[in-house]
Amino acid sequence: MRPSGRAPDQLREIALEVAVSRYAEGSCLAKFGQTHVLCTASVETGVPGWLKGQGKGWVTGEYGMLPRATHTRGRREAAQGKQSGRTQEIQRLIGRSLRSVVDLKLLGDRTITIDCDVIQADGGTRTAAITGAWVALSKACAYLVEEKVLKASPITGQVAAVSCGVFENAPVLDLDYAEDSNADVDANFILAGDGRMIEIQATGEHRPFSDDEFAALMRLAKLGCAHLFEAQLKAAG
Amino acid sequence: MRPSGRAPDQLREIALEVAVSRYAEGSCLAKFGQTHVLCTASVETGVPGWLKGQGKGWVTGEYGMLPRATHTRGRREAAQGKQSGRTQEIQRLIGRSLRSVVDLKLLGDRTITIDCDVIQADGGTRTAAITGAWVALSKACAYLVEEKVLKASPITGQVAAVSCGVFENAPVLDLDYAEDSNADVDANFILAGDGRMIEIQATGEHRPFSDDEFAALMRLAKLGCAHLFEAQLKAAG
Amino acid sequence: MRPSGRAPDQLREIALEVAVSRYAEGSCLAKFGQTHVLCTASVETGVPGWLKGQGKGWVTGEYGMLPRATHTRGRREAAQGKQSGRTQEIQRLIGRSLRSVVDLKLLGDRTITIDCDVIQADGGTRTAAITGAWVALSKACAYLVEEKVLKASPITGQVAAVSCGVFENAPVLDLDYAEDSNADVDANFILAGDGRMIEIQATGEHRPFSDDEFAALMRLAKLGCAHLFEAQLKAAG
Amino acid sequence: MRPSGRAPDQLREIALEVAVSRYAEGSCLAKFGQTHVLCTASVETGVPGWLKGQGKGWVTGEYGMLPRATHTRGRREAAQGKQSGRTQEIQRLIGRSLRSVVDLKLLGDRTITIDCDVIQADGGTRTAAITGAWVALSKACAYLVEEKVLKASPITGQVAAVSCGVFENAPVLDLDYAEDSNADVDANFILAGDGRMIEIQATGEHRPFSDDEFAALMRLAKLGCAHLFEAQLKAAG
Amino acid sequence: MRPSGRAPDQLREIALEVAVSRYAEGSCLAKFGQTHVLCTASVETGVPGWLKGQGKGWVTGEYGMLPRATHTRGRREAAQGKQSGRTQEIQRLIGRSLRSVVDLKLLGDRTITIDCDVIQADGGTRTAAITGAWVALSKACAYLVEEKVLKASPITGQVAAVSCGVFENAPVLDLDYAEDSNADVDANFILAGDGRMIEIQATGEHRPFSDDEFAALMRLAKLGCAHLFEAQLKAAG
Amino acid sequence: MRPSGRAPDQLREIALEVAVSRYAEGSCLAKFGQTHVLCTASVETGVPGWLKGQGKGWVTGEYGMLPRATHTRGRREAAQGKQSGRTQEIQRLIGRSLRSVVDLKLLGDRTITIDCDVIQADGGTRTAAITGAWVALSKACAYLVEEKVLKASPITGQVAAVSCGVFENAPVLDLDYAEDSNADVDANFILAGDGRMIEIQATGEHRPFSDDEFAALMRLAKLGCAHLFEAQLKAAG
Repeated sequence: MRPSGRAPDQLREIALEVAVSRYAEGSCLAKFGQTHVLCTASVETGVPGWLKGQGKGWVTGEYGMLPRATHTRGRREAAQGKQSGRTQEIQRLIGRSLRSVVDLKLLGDRTITIDCDVIQADGGTRTAAITGAWVALSKACAYLVEEKVLKASPITGQVAAVSCGVFENAPVLDLDYAEDSNADVDANFILAGDGRMIEIQATGEHRPFSDDEFAALMRLAKLGCAHLFEAQLKAAG
Repeated sequence: MRPSGRAPDQLREIALEVAVSRYAEGSCLAKFGQTHVLCTASVETGVPGWLKGQGKGWVTGEYGMLPRATHTRGRREAAQGKQSGRTQEIQRLIGRSLRSVVDLKLLGDRTITIDCDVIQADGGTRTAAITGAWVALSKACAYLVEEKVLKASPITGQVAAVSCGVFENAPVLDLDYAEDSNADVDANFILAGDGRMIEIQATGEHRPFSDDEFAALMRLAKLGCAHLFEAQLKAAG
Repeated sequence: MRPSGRAPDQLREIALEVAVSRYAEGSCLAKFGQTHVLCTASVETGVPGWLKGQGKGWVTGEYGMLPRATHTRGRREAAQGKQSGRTQEIQRLIGRSLRSVVDLKLLGDRTITIDCDVIQADGGTRTAAITGAWVALSKACAYLVEEKVLKASPITGQVAAVSCGVFENAPVLDLDYAEDSNADVDANFILAGDGRMIEIQATGEHRPFSDDEFAALMRLAKLGCAHLFEAQLKAAG
Repeated sequence: MRPSGRAPDQLREIALEVAVSRYAEGSCLAKFGQTHVLCTASVETGVPGWLKGQGKGWVTGEYGMLPRATHTRGRREAAQGKQSGRTQEIQRLIGRSLRSVVDLKLLGDRTITIDCDVIQADGGTRTAAITGAWVALSKACAYLVEEKVLKASPITGQVAAVSCGVFENAPVLDLDYAEDSNADVDANFILAGDGRMIEIQATGEHRPFSDDEFAALMRLAKLGCAHLFEAQLKAAG
Repeated sequence: MRPSGRAPDQLREIALEVAVSRYAEGSCLAKFGQTHVLCTASVETGVPGWLKGQGKGWVTGEYGMLPRATHTRGRREAAQGKQSGRTQEIQRLIGRSLRSVVDLKLLGDRTITIDCDVIQADGGTRTAAITGAWVALSKACAYLVEEKVLKASPITGQVAAVSCGVFENAPVLDLDYAEDSNADVDANFILAGDGRMIEIQATGEHRPFSDDEFAALMRLAKLGCAHLFEAQLKAAG
Repeated sequence: MRPSGRAPDQLREIALEVAVSRYAEGSCLAKFGQTHVLCTASVETGVPGWLKGQGKGWVTGEYGMLPRATHTRGRREAAQGKQSGRTQEIQRLIGRSLRSVVDLKLLGDRTITIDCDVIQADGGTRTAAITGAWVALSKACAYLVEEKVLKASPITGQVAAVSCGVFENAPVLDLDYAEDSNADVDANFILAGDGRMIEIQATGEHRPFSDDEFAALMRLAKLGCAHLFEAQLKAAG
């Protein structure tokens, strides 16, 4: 029995609200239950120095969490003077995942930065961030096409992400904090729209895991992402 | 004529929504028109080292702005590794203002941190932050009383803040970004519930200002804060 | 009765000594009683990146305090690896105030940095810094004219600053440390040579303040700055 | 055909040399072909602050790369003043993996830090680091038992790691730099001695990957780790 | 012929002015010609963590240079967020030199920090700093004896320092900037009151130096320090 | 009697192993007994900004120590976010010493960085670093000549370094850690191939030292460097 009463293969209530920012070229407030991540896509001219002259654009992600997004207040990273290893790991993951579905040549001399800021956290912030980031990115690209800055959208496919885990010996989909903090195995799956995988991160938190367990988690992830892909299309519409 | 069409002494639409955070002991989303600041009050046991053993609590503020809260994306302070001088100035102001209406002895060995995070900015973020921070603080104190942690609320009065300025030679109340970025004189007034002043910051951005101009701004501030005090009481209920 | 025995409207002994640095284009050691601030104006070719190509120069201020300028030794900011919020706030204030009386177009592709280093502190360091900084700046501009680098001085007016406060319920001018650390209300006024105001910062340290109190402080500030303007002219001669 | 001429399921030449440090309680120079990682295990009394009073020890990892461990010189992280996101990600991974096979209660009030410094890099530094780190840790624990500091070794199992990838459409084991920098899919597998998995990280670098591809990589990893487990036992002997 | 017209074995005009700080327990403004270093000695209770419980005090030095102490403005270290290697090297040297003539057991549970801040630089700032620092330290210890905090001064001897160098093939004493920036060999000698040496730093800036050259520099240093020791005694009175 | 049983004028066993890095243009593992320093010379096109347009190249050194190179684990400088004063002091020394024997004009628009990383420390790491760095630099220059990048080697002479000290009142050569940590006087001599001196650093750790003592140390240094020069030539062959 899951703390939330959900079935093992049941996502939390998912909402992908768009146009939530007055200024960003694309934006999406991704809600996976009580986990709320505000994703904004900002288009800027120019690319990072090391990419100059290659005729390619860049897509990158930044991640942050409001200090009181969590049960107990965390320290503000800006005040501490550095981003934690966890933050940097998630930022790298977001950027890598999104770039796998963008034709950077088509994007041209532009950088799109997706800021994913966690307003409230209840487990699965990185997967909600990636799922919402794709919508924000997609909206920003549509805007560039609409404004005739680009002839065609450089987006080549969908990306969505969901967490799975082994909780009380049962494989379950989309862990909330109560599950996440007690799961034996914790995995994040980032999938492409065709069902193939873009990134897998699986960790045996308290014990190693078997092939069968892993296979069960992967099945759940595919199931979950199928729903997320639908929600994304509806939102990005 | 103001860009927004408002009368010179007219506030933007004000909303102070409470209980917007699942975890914080007190919270308020302060909206001054398109300026939206999320204020959360977090209660923690203990006080900063330099205050230990004095039988007093502490109230402090932190301030941040999401990178795309503004027209063009700003750099993330956590990524830059430091908070700007502006951010630190505002943080100090928020803490100072709130402490002026808290009986720190009554608060006891506790620190309340008010995080003011600007989700969207359209001018006047610091005044919206202070106005909302008081509501969040007030709610957190009420919670401590309700939970019988404190016998009585340590809040001794109200604090609200509003900006005023001289825009196209006319004194106006509650500047939005279009006005703020072109004002000749820019002032922030932080008032106590009895109409007296807690802090004044007035700057001649493009030229010095006269006594008469300053007096006009102060009159507008009192008018504006009277409305804000009402809204605070309604919100803090 | 003031700790120093001064009348309520009496400045400390003021000295603005010029040409105190062998190298700086302009310099002034500003003494407000026991508060001693060394102000040097350094002229460099070029402007900050964000100002390039606009045909304008730049004037900026930096502020520091020697570790043992105060009663008890403070930590060296260079050793701590960052400037405090207070230091940054004062730096921003110095730069802003001086720029309000400089024609940046006339200055051309040059940056003038005013370093204000507190050698000894006894209250009112920021106001002494601004008052001395104007003299140093003025001297540097005169030097540029003399050297035929500029045809005319880009200085368009005078700036002086003084602190006022409510000490033991009486409004007093030019607080020293003994007063400053116990004042109920603390205010800094930065005035233009014509008596108008460039910046006001007023804070109710221990309680809010009334309109009448504020008006009394402003009157004292005008009185004090009148003396400072004279002293500046004599020094800048 | 692999650049090195190896068979798809062939590891590079593996060497795990022990007692390579005069001072460390345990040490191992792990060589995976031309990738050389020096792993030292340092035992210190006490645990991090947040773990105090829980009767448990701590095992953590740090990772570094000499500036010229690579084809072109990289910047020294100590000189840059911060560790890259990649470094922090790897450090977290090393610590997490090792802790999964240590009984922290048995370790008692001690911290063991495994420093993994890459002397020379030719792909797969993190997997070589983990494989060598286990040997160093194991040696340090044996030393603690030998010195009668501990009654029994707190090590509960083996951990080894290897990279796999899809290179020119073929799944291959233990990528060197030539392969790694051109692989379509890149995965790191961290396995427990019983063949179960402790951590999986798989990334589609240039395209998503299918279930079949992933299954092939996992098979290769198991094969490779079986060899590594043997080599570890021989070394830790 | 030296640029200043001095004889090869002639010091610049030396002045060691004491009691120049209103607050410091000991202070000395050391002037070696146009090089002016303000040295303050601050006594604080307690010692650094690593020295606790050993019944010994600590003496340490900090060094800084005002941005416009030099011909062209240097960047403020506090603003840059770190002290240069040069600054740290000099700080370590000052502390080491002074500690060699202090009985730390006699000092007891106290730290004396000597801040050496260069107000104006014309070569030889580190040697002027050490020479003045001894006076400030000496004064602070005398104050502790006078105030009956200590029974006897913990100072066991004198320390003075002077630079020498080979300028246009001639060994000269006490280099000013014009010489220093063109010397072939540059050396700093820190001597004890009995003529023995506490520290020698000699560098062949543009070419190696011979035994004879070095011997000549050492002779000059002894000569110069003899004068400095006298001046110190007169100042420390 | 020395702890190691060596004669007072006896070096430790010296080994200068070359070609120890697969990638560096020149490399040398310098072993002074149990002190092992890996020196790599990396050639890069371009020079630091401040040297641009002068037709000269640059040679610089960086220094690091693996955390467990020493008896007890030291903190990783990269993790602490800054290099210690000691590290910076040594880096500056390495660069300065090497530049004294390089014709920077001949080197042209190139920077050679010598990384000196201490793998194991038993006293005298900076002198081993410099001695090995010269070999690595020499090899790198030979490589540039061989590859016809340069017509002739820009190396104009040899540089070697050794420590000496007064241990139990006897002058001894090449201190190991047991001696170094208890020496009364500690000196580092950096010599040119012709026997002249490039840099001398001598410190009275626990007491001042006399002219005779210093002369004895210098004699030992010359003796020791004569051996080191031979070993360098054999290695650089």
